[in-house]
Amino acid sequence: MSKIQEALELISRGTQEILLKEELVERLKAGKPLRVKVGFDPTAPDLHLGHTVLLNKMRQFQDLGHEVIFLIGDFTGMIGDPSGKNETRPPLTREQVEANSQTYQKQVFKVLDPKKTQIAFNSQWMEALKPVDLIRLASTHTVAQMLERDDFGKRYQGNQPIAIHEFLYPLLQGYDSVALRADIELGGTDQKFNLLMGRELQKYFGQSPQIVITLPLLVGLDGVKKMSKSLGNYIGIEDAPDEMFGKIMSISDETMWTYFELISFRSNSEIQKLREAVEGGLNPRDVKFLLGEEIVERFHDHAAAQEARQSFIARFQQGALPADMPEVKVALGEQGIMIAHLLKSIGLAPSTSKALQLIEGGGVRIDGEKVSEKNLVITEKKAIILQVGKRRFAKVSFT
Amino acid sequence: MSKIQEALELISRGTQEILLKEELVERLKAGKPLRVKVGFDPTAPDLHLGHTVLLNKMRQFQDLGHEVIFLIGDFTGMIGDPSGKNETRPPLTREQVEANSQTYQKQVFKVLDPKKTQIAFNSQWMEALKPVDLIRLASTHTVAQMLERDDFGKRYQGNQPIAIHEFLYPLLQGYDSVALRADIELGGTDQKFNLLMGRELQKYFGQSPQIVITLPLLVGLDGVKKMSKSLGNYIGIEDAPDEMFGKIMSISDETMWTYFELISFRSNSEIQKLREAVEGGLNPRDVKFLLGEEIVERFHDHAAAQEARQSFIARFQQGALPADMPEVKVALGEQGIMIAHLLKSIGLAPSTSKALQLIEGGGVRIDGEKVSEKNLVITEKKAIILQVGKRRFAKVSFT
Repeated sequence: MSKIQEALELISRGTQEILLKEELVERLKAGKPLRVKVGFDPTAPDLHLGHTVLLNKMRQFQDLGHEVIFLIGDFTGMIGDPSGKNETRPPLTREQVEANSQTYQKQVFKVLDPKKTQIAFNSQWMEALKPVDLIRLASTHTVAQMLERDDFGKRYQGNQPIAIHEFLYPLLQGYDSVALRADIELGGTDQKFNLLMGRELQKYFGQSPQIVITLPLLVGLDGVKKMSKSLGNYIGIEDAPDEMFGKIMSISDETMWTYFELISFRSNSEIQKLREAVEGGLNPRDVKFLLGEEIVERFHDHAAAQEARQSFIARFQQGALPADMPEVKVALGEQGIMIAHLLKSIGLAPSTSKALQLIEGGGVRIDGEKVSEKNLVITEKKAIILQVGKRRFAKVSFT
Repeated sequence: MSKIQEALELISRGTQEILLKEELVERLKAGKPLRVKVGFDPTAPDLHLGHTVLLNKMRQFQDLGHEVIFLIGDFTGMIGDPSGKNETRPPLTREQVEANSQTYQKQVFKVLDPKKTQIAFNSQWMEALKPVDLIRLASTHTVAQMLERDDFGKRYQGNQPIAIHEFLYPLLQGYDSVALRADIELGGTDQKFNLLMGRELQKYFGQSPQIVITLPLLVGLDGVKKMSKSLGNYIGIEDAPDEMFGKIMSISDETMWTYFELISFRSNSEIQKLREAVEGGLNPRDVKFLLGEEIVERFHDHAAAQEARQSFIARFQQGALPADMPEVKVALGEQGIMIAHLLKSIGLAPSTSKALQLIEGGGVRIDGEKVSEKNLVITEKKAIILQVGKRRFAKVSFT
């Protein structure tokens, strides 16, 4: 297999789309280090495994000798929501952006090679734009083209307001590619429209259009929704080893294979062998152990991974963790839910008073940890494994 | 009648709408000189009578002691059409804007009082806007609100492209009102959406919203379409006295009354008396003479008006101009039309060769002037009065 072909295979793994593949081949053939742009939101510097799908792909490019640009979209972050309607997007100060950037860097360099990473802030070129530049940028696309973007189209059809500046943001994001002279841009499948905007604008400004590579979105611990901090279904890359390992163990056997494909560094053939082993009778839990160890080792180290595994087994009384547990969903009210009520409502205790007795007797565990506080109120939407006695388990997720 | 009431009556004459009249009354009562903004396009400095509907209203405000701001929209003029699709809107240089402004001033001061007129260029504040300012401006309105504007809505429905920067222009025009702290903005009825935008943005920026006064558009010589240079149905305010007078004489009796209302300085009661006289049997032509004299006197002087009238009468052989002439519309091809062909096609000559003989014999006149060039080709879409011999007339307009 030629070197180009090898590179292409590595780059293609786990991607959703490559637009256009033949252009990618051409640039790889040119043999020069390519500039790979990836944009990050400056408001949420707590990275989770979902982000690492992108980071891993960036790392692969670095390993192939290319230059990765970690772009922090601070310009719009410092504007916040100019309509003032969205309170969850307060404008950031330059100091906050700087602090967030430090937090980001501390985290991303667990995956990326610092020597081959350029950190960029788009305020650098955005703030230098003149009004006429913005008007020219806006003139390159039509209202109808913008309304083709799935979310804009739906909102317009549904009579939900779209402020005009929202049409400018994809253009600004596209202009980042022009300013950076990007060869390639990576992003989640939900970013495809914006990534293609970069292609269009580069053409408009006389540059070769970037190749767009989209990556699937990692589902969260619930196996259904996109992993996100606000949904509480995430594994933070700064989570402690035990928490990280426990969360991996909580995903369904089905979701486990998706995680293998998107975040494991094992080769396709290794993963195939694991699948075959499970089909041949191996407990999927044991395969999940391997995934848990790999992830903890990546963000901590080998020893931490081994300890996390041992501690998990110990907590669940070696061998007692069933291969499949009942899964229940519980609505978490604004006030949260008392542990005793929870036990009753999902049938792990016949009554609240019996549930309180069980807790006092030390017979109730959350994620393997004994519950010592009788009146514990659960307020976080994080999925948990609830255990009563030695044999009764339930995986509880909250909505 | 109180002074306020008198002012209100003068301001209201010939207007289409005043939004809101009660706010206007309040500001007039405050007794301070008001800032009256009127925007002009820097690309077309040749003013015609259509523009003077606005200029007259501006002059009335000056006579009432208010300050008029003659705003030249040079910022967008210097951008031109950024999509490059509209060749009729090449970007202007600063020198061109300056030259156009001089031409404008020379013309508008035939109506306005220079001492009470402030000339302003919006590039002054537009070029100082930062990208974040533009984004904030864009955030104040929604896509749906913009599509409510009649022409945008029709284009969107008709699948005609609307470039995104076109949504920014009304916002910029509205921002002019903020920058100028305008109390009142005047404009044609076709500008209503944009004028109201000024109101909205002033509120957004914490200013008292300007009062919007719209004025009807003056129809052109054809009596149907808006007067405009590109349609060739205009009377330029720099037209020579004879031409100006002749053009006024070419309008229909119906259109004459519209002109009286919108551009004559005669009082409503005087105009009413003229109407009654015509109903009583006075030849409308004689009333048209009065209008012609008034307009020529305004843009030239009294003597010129008298001469234009005399010369018109002489050219049309005193009394020979019929009170009503047949009106015909002729399609003017790309190459124009030969005068001989025109005479034949509208029935003023039985054949082209006969038409050529008539011309050679000196029996054909255009607007009272003998045609001496046998092969004359008409290429301009200006309406003309065509005369053959002493008695046969036709008013010809071109499409």
